[in-house]
Formats: sequence, structure tokens, C-alpha cells
Amino acid sequence: MSGTPQSAGVSTALLTDRYELTMVAAALADGTAGRSCVFEVFARRLPDGRRYGVVAGTGRLLESITRFRFGDEELAALEGVVDAATLDWLAAYRFTGDVDGYPEGELYFPGSPILTVRGTFADAVLLETLALSILNHDSAVASAAARMVTAAAGRPLIEMGSRRTHEAAAVASARATYLAGFGATSNLEAGRRHGIPTAGTAAHAWILLHDDELGAFASQVEALGADTTLLVDTYDIRRGVELAVQAAGPGLGAIRIDSGDLGELARQARDQLDALGAVNTKIVLSGDLDEYAIASLRAEPVDSYGVGTSVVTGSGAPTAGMVYKLVEVDGRPVAKRSAAKESRGGAKSAVRRFKPTGTAVEEVVHAAGSPVPVGPHDRVLPVPLVRGGEPVPDLPTLAESRDRLRAALVSVPWEGLKLSRGEPAIPTVFP
Amino acid sequence: MSGTPQSAGVSTALLTDRYELTMVAAALADGTAGRSCVFEVFARRLPDGRRYGVVAGTGRLLESITRFRFGDEELAALEGVVDAATLDWLAAYRFTGDVDGYPEGELYFPGSPILTVRGTFADAVLLETLALSILNHDSAVASAAARMVTAAAGRPLIEMGSRRTHEAAAVASARATYLAGFGATSNLEAGRRHGIPTAGTAAHAWILLHDDELGAFASQVEALGADTTLLVDTYDIRRGVELAVQAAGPGLGAIRIDSGDLGELARQARDQLDALGAVNTKIVLSGDLDEYAIASLRAEPVDSYGVGTSVVTGSGAPTAGMVYKLVEVDGRPVAKRSAAKESRGGAKSAVRRFKPTGTAVEEVVHAAGSPVPVGPHDRVLPVPLVRGGEPVPDLPTLAESRDRLRAALVSVPWEGLKLSRGEPAIPTVFP
Repeated sequence: MSGTPQSAGVSTALLTDRYELTMVAAALADGTAGRSCVFEVFARRLPDGRRYGVVAGTGRLLESITRFRFGDEELAALEGVVDAATLDWLAAYRFTGDVDGYPEGELYFPGSPILTVRGTFADAVLLETLALSILNHDSAVASAAARMVTAAAGRPLIEMGSRRTHEAAAVASARATYLAGFGATSNLEAGRRHGIPTAGTAAHAWILLHDDELGAFASQVEALGADTTLLVDTYDIRRGVELAVQAAGPGLGAIRIDSGDLGELARQARDQLDALGAVNTKIVLSGDLDEYAIASLRAEPVDSYGVGTSVVTGSGAPTAGMVYKLVEVDGRPVAKRSAAKESRGGAKSAVRRFKPTGTAVEEVVHAAGSPVPVGPHDRVLPVPLVRGGEPVPDLPTLAESRDRLRAALVSVPWEGLKLSRGEPAIPTVFP
Repeated sequence: MSGTPQSAGVSTALLTDRYELTMVAAALADGTAGRSCVFEVFARRLPDGRRYGVVAGTGRLLESITRFRFGDEELAALEGVVDAATLDWLAAYRFTGDVDGYPEGELYFPGSPILTVRGTFADAVLLETLALSILNHDSAVASAAARMVTAAAGRPLIEMGSRRTHEAAAVASARATYLAGFGATSNLEAGRRHGIPTAGTAAHAWILLHDDELGAFASQVEALGADTTLLVDTYDIRRGVELAVQAAGPGLGAIRIDSGDLGELARQARDQLDALGAVNTKIVLSGDLDEYAIASLRAEPVDSYGVGTSVVTGSGAPTAGMVYKLVEVDGRPVAKRSAAKESRGGAKSAVRRFKPTGTAVEEVVHAAGSPVPVGPHDRVLPVPLVRGGEPVPDLPTLAESRDRLRAALVSVPWEGLKLSRGEPAIPTVFP
């Protein structure tokens, strides 16, 4: 949850749409800036036939809010965007409101009040862009990653998609996939910043650099130990496996196959490794894997998967589509009322109802001021996150959020874990 | 091209896959680290039936390479990842090789040698992850954006997708869309960092904050002037247009419609505005627009488009799929030779052939050491970008790269500008 040495103190205030600031300027001018407001983050729908979404990015958001300050450089950049009175106001700005929300790692469904921001209009509207950027990105990646974890059925997953997404999004993607149950990432900055285990094997370039494959393998084993992972598909895979065991001995840690018919190749490699006495050598598969490809490999002798492109791009849903809507002004519910994209006004809370067996049944989204009965197996979903502008003490660690998601997925009705397109795993009910 | 005040000096070295560093460690140990290597960035194919790709991110990459240094904090994070000798080597590391590549804003096709990195193995392999992250992200966004610019047929486009992508990717997305011909962005940091014009209107929250729509419009006009853009679809659009003109007078700058049947609503609003005497008031449309929706609005009275989700997510192709492959070691061509994902070895250059009319005919990708004839209408595509680790002088500005793309698109055969899926606009030929 803590910032990196390099990001601590760096302002996040300009990672914002211009209209947030011009609205503040106009609201300061007409006296509405101080009206007491409630904004709500929710998703109108889940992407693309998905059964559930995973809330991710909350920890990053709370940390980013504390850096949402306008220093001299930010103010200089806003000359001409807003007037002098607004610049003065921004110079003193820090968020002083309250935030409640679904804890990171919780599931969400259409209409779930994922985040509720209370403050003056000016206080709270400024956070819109940043909050959505972080939650939409991280939740999209975590939601895709969780499906892959389910598909992998207990086999470890390594996130290796940094090269397929923006260099800073890569760090956040590593965090989101770890939250969702991946075991490690290739991204070193994610290791430093978020304490996520890092892993790596070698590239085809490593093999091609050397005069022959055996020499490349031998050097890698010499430098990194026999428990390293040797990439065997640069030339002929069968020959590659043979040379890998020759270089490392039967104690070789793992081989990686990155191309071809992965299931067939895994079976052949397993037989070959066993015949060579390398019975404990693991098989790592990579190469354009997504949740469907992972699921199709369930019966094959695979030990772990490296996943890149598909997970960092949300496997077809690169953004979660959450919105940040004003739902209450001075205690009065408000909502857009034209035909399309209608919203429900009023601050809300939510209860998830469960069977005594622990299986989720429905998501009850209700007016915050009109609580619904909470049975012994039910759970009130939003928790306090920020009070008076400060993150509450003892927010969950990334590891705790990871545990939360694992437990939440166990509660989903079994149809809700299917990879096929369908309805949300549980209905959202608005009493 | 210059770093921001806040990013200047911040190391980019850990925005890297772990295996790049362990390969360097192993190469330092076995003496291959100093072998003279050529790496090439190319795309095996264009995404999803696309006709062309747009090279974007080069300027950001060159700036990031100058910050690819391992300081004390980075080295501390690498304890346990690589050995002490490698840490010493990294402490002294700066890239000292050469880079050539397609200039930013140039088109590319399958197999185009988009970037060629020459250096020792250790020098050049370290840049793989960062180079691909930047080029894959920015090119994906620019490639989608260019199609939208074509679809808009001269009408201005505003990028407003920050909330739908990672908060740092949002800044890069704004840059890539501007490169592709968008006129402005909502993202303030993109304005500061890259000098891109920023724009904005108001959110539905602005209307809902006020006791009535007329009051909201009047305040906005008071604060921001009559040439502001009023959002008219919060309640009833017809009534909204009426109140907008009442608040601002017939000199109102623009109205924005963000939901509903945009074409039909634009026609109605145009008629209504004209009847109210607001004949110069422009109509801005937004709301889930992509290149197809924009094209379908060509006959409607629209003045500009606000585009969000679709452009920052590459409109179905969120990553460009470029790879960074070792193609030459000590002057010897190398290439992966197993069945799948085969590559062509050897350093390459490329010439694009044109008809005398200026229409592109083919992309000739040839061995760097075997030049092909270059006719009077042809163009050699790669240019020097880095020499001895330093960016060459007088690299193109973002505005110049924007002009380059505009000119390049004019050269594409007309079928190549179609939005429908198809083959690349010109074939890639390997003589």
C-alpha cells in the first residue's frame, strides 16, 4: 500500500480530465462548490458475458489520493485553464471527505456500489478521473486473471505481460494478477513496489546468442543453478529436452515450451523427461495463453503457465466500464433522467445474501438510509476506507485482499465460475 | 520529447522483466555478454484485419532509454535476483549502442523492421521489455485513433478516455491520439508533459449539482463564457437545448450529447438550434463512439466527436503485438527455427515503393547488407535514432510526427483506408 521511494510525493493531481477543474471553478464562482455530495462508483453491466467482476486497485487509489495535491508545478500548468481564485483554492486542496467501498478482492456485480465518496462537490468531483482510471484498469485485469486462476485449477500462473501493455500499467497489472491468485510476475518494479514474487526463465535470444543450444543451457545452469527453467523450443523441441537434461542433469528445475501445440508437446516432453530420469523436472507452458487455452490444457502434464498478452489486456475486456456518478446533493437523491444510461439516485449500501452452505444467492443494493435485514449468513459489503481524507488504519494488505478473493470465489454458485458467456453469477436486487 | 519535471531522472530500469537481468548475469559469467548483437522490433501480423499500423511511442522510448539507469534503490531491489558482479556491472550501465527505426508517425506492415537496436548482448537485451511496452501500447492506440480520424473525415476529435485506462497509460494515450490526428485531449498531464491542447465540457454531475438545469447552464456560462460547451442530455434533450440557448444566447459555443441515438438527436438538435438563431452553435457528440459509429454519423450535422473507451483500448486491439528478436550475433544471422513463430534472421532495412502518383505499392524488407534499388518515388524507411547511446540531434517533434502520419495516410491505396477487415494495405516483400 505504501508508495515507492520514487513515487512518494509525486503529485497525481494532473492525472485528471480538464472538466473536473473547470467544473470546480464554476462551482466556486456560483457557490455550489460546498454542497454536500455523494458520488458512487458502479458498473452498469459486466463486460462481455462475464459472470462476476473483481474489485481491484483500491489500495493504489487510496495511496494516490494522498498524493492528489497541487504543487507549484501543477498550478503553473493550470494557468489559463482555471481562474486565479480557483488556483488559490487548488493550492490548498486536499481531499477531506469520506470514502466507503467494497474491499479490494471482493466480487462485484452490475449496480454494486463499489465505491462511495462523500464530500463537498469540489472535494469529491476532483477525484473522478483518477478513481476511475485506477479501478477500471486494475479491476479489468484482476477480473480476467481470476478466470485464468480458476481455469488453471491449482496450477501456478506467472504473469509475464509487461511487454504488451504500457510500462506503468504493467506494474499495476502485475499487482492485479497477484491479487487474483497468480503466483508471481516477471515485472521487477512490481516486485519492488508491491512485494510480489518475481520469476523468469530465459528468452530465445539467450539460446541464439550462443554457438549451440547445449552451450546456452550449460551456461544458464552454471549461472543460475540446476533448478532454473530452460527454454527448449528454439530449434527442435525433442532435441532441446535431451540437451536440457544433459546440461542440468535429471535434477533440472523446469523446461519451458513457448510455441506449437502446447498440449501435445507437453505430453511428449513429459514422457521424454521421465524416460531421461528427470521425473521431477517441471513443464512450464507459455505463448498466447488465455483462460480458454489454460482450461483446454487441464488434462495435460503441465506444472505452471506463463500468461502475457491476454491477462494484461483483460482478455477481451481491457476496461471494467465503471462510472463515477453524483447520486446525492445535500441529502437529496439525484440521477440523470434521459432515456439512455439512466442511473439510480441516492447513496447506497449493499448486502450479499448467502445460503447456510456459504453459496452466494443475491446482491441486495439498497438506499443507505434504509437498511435491509442482514441474516446470519449475509455480509454487508462496503467498509470504511477513508475518513476525513485519511485512509483508515489497518487497511488490508495485498496478501489479505488475495485471500479475500479466494474465499469469495468459493462462494460463487458453480455456474458462475464457468468460462462461457452468460448472466451474472448472482442477480442484483434493488428492493 | 523532454521529460516532465516530475519524471526527469526517475529510473526506468526496473520496468523490465526479470529474465532480461538474469540473462545478463549468465552472459557476463560465460563471456557472451560482449558479443555484438542486433535486435529487431517487428510485428508478425497486424491485429484483427487491420490494413496498417502506426508507429508511435518512439519519442517516449528514446527519452526513457536515457533514464534507464540503475541507481542505489534499483540495485538494492535486485539483491538476490542477480549476483554481485552483475550488480556492479548494472551500476555502471548506460546504453551505448545504436538504434535505427521507422520514424514516429510512419506506417508499418507485417515484418516491417520498426526498430533495430545494435549493441553488445547485455547492452541491448536489457531494453527489450521497456521498448516493447512503450511501442506496443502507443502504437495500438495510435493505430486505432488514425482509423477514427479517417472516419471523422475532417471533423475534430477530442480524446477523453483517461478514465478507461491506467492513469499513466492515459497520458501516453492522449499523446498517441494527438499524433494520429486528434485535435485535443481531456488529460491535463498530457497537456503539461507533451504540450497537447486540452479541452473539456462538463459532466452530468454539474447539472445534477444544481437546483435546475437552467441554473447550471447559466453558472457555467458565467464562469467559462458563452463559447463553452453545455451538456444537454441530463433530462429532456429538447428542453436542454432550449435552456442552453436561453442561458448563453445564440452565441453559445456548443452543446454536447452523450447518450441516445446520436445521429437522430444531432439532426433534431441542429434544427432546433437553427430555429433558435444559434446557427453557429456546434454539436459535440460523445458516448461509446468508435470508428464505426463515427463513420455512421458522417451524414449528420455533427461538428466534433469526443472519444473515450474505444480509442484508449485500441478499439479491439489493445496491444500492437510487436516482438523484440535477436537477429544477428557477431555478424551472423540468427533465428528461431522450430515450427511455430519462425523469424527471419539478419539485420534488415526497408524501402517503401510508391507509384509516381504517390500511392504506396509495397514494403520491401531486405537484408541490411544487401541494399535494393531505391527509385525516385521510393523511400528508405529506417532513420538513425540513437548513436552511441545518445538520441541523435533534431529528432522530430510530436507535431512533425503528426504531419508525417497525415502525409503517410494520403499515400495508402484507397482500399487500405477502409474500416472493414481485410489484408494489409500494401504487401510486404522479402526479396
